[in-house]
Amino acid sequence: MSASSFAKTPKPPYYAVIFSAQRTEGDNGYAEAAARMGELVAQQPGFLGAESTRGDDGFGITVAYFDSEDAIRSWKRHLEHAAARKNGRETWYSHYEVRVARVERAYDFTAPEID
Amino acid sequence: MSASSFAKTPKPPYYAVIFSAQRTEGDNGYAEAAARMGELVAQQPGFLGAESTRGDDGFGITVAYFDSEDAIRSWKRHLEHAAARKNGRETWYSHYEVRVARVERAYDFTAPEID
Repeated sequence: MSASSFAKTPKPPYYAVIFSAQRTEGDNGYAEAAARMGELVAQQPGFLGAESTRGDDGFGITVAYFDSEDAIRSWKRHLEHAAARKNGRETWYSHYEVRVARVERAYDFTAPEID
Repeated sequence: MSASSFAKTPKPPYYAVIFSAQRTEGDNGYAEAAARMGELVAQQPGFLGAESTRGDDGFGITVAYFDSEDAIRSWKRHLEHAAARKNGRETWYSHYEVRVARVERAYDFTAPEID
């Protein structure tokens, strides 16, 4: 789930988990855990990709895409993920919002190469 | 649409427009236009709020929330917004993805104040 990378998602419909969060000060093990979660979610059946970014103010948005509600539920029940969410509430985040949405349509744009 | 602010959205269902984009180098009028679009969308009937952030690498995610598909269509047809999108394709973005999704459920977390 590196920054500056777009998720290659299939034609809709599919599902999006929109996670917006304000980080607290300091790392406190966050970077390592985030990398581990990125590895784990990529192994999750039905995971389609994710897009993630955070500004210098610590406000970040991650959108993870899944092919079904079942895939989202399985990921939510993953034990390491549940433990990470607990750390998120206790240490890493001062506030977050989670929204689960069904993607109905999508389009993209790529600028032409300029010689 | 300032960074580091959460959108105060109602109980689902409602709609999300997920816009992920890679900025090109240089401002080229982007900051002024983005501020103007933030003002305009806030006046749009059915607009519920937005969350937006961008990392130092120029990759950003903005999620705008609306109460209906009609509200999204009206905003898309807004003439100044259409002109800004044209500038986006010609100047500001090397690539972007737009996904329109129906938010099915949502929850949030706020850390308790520590004395």
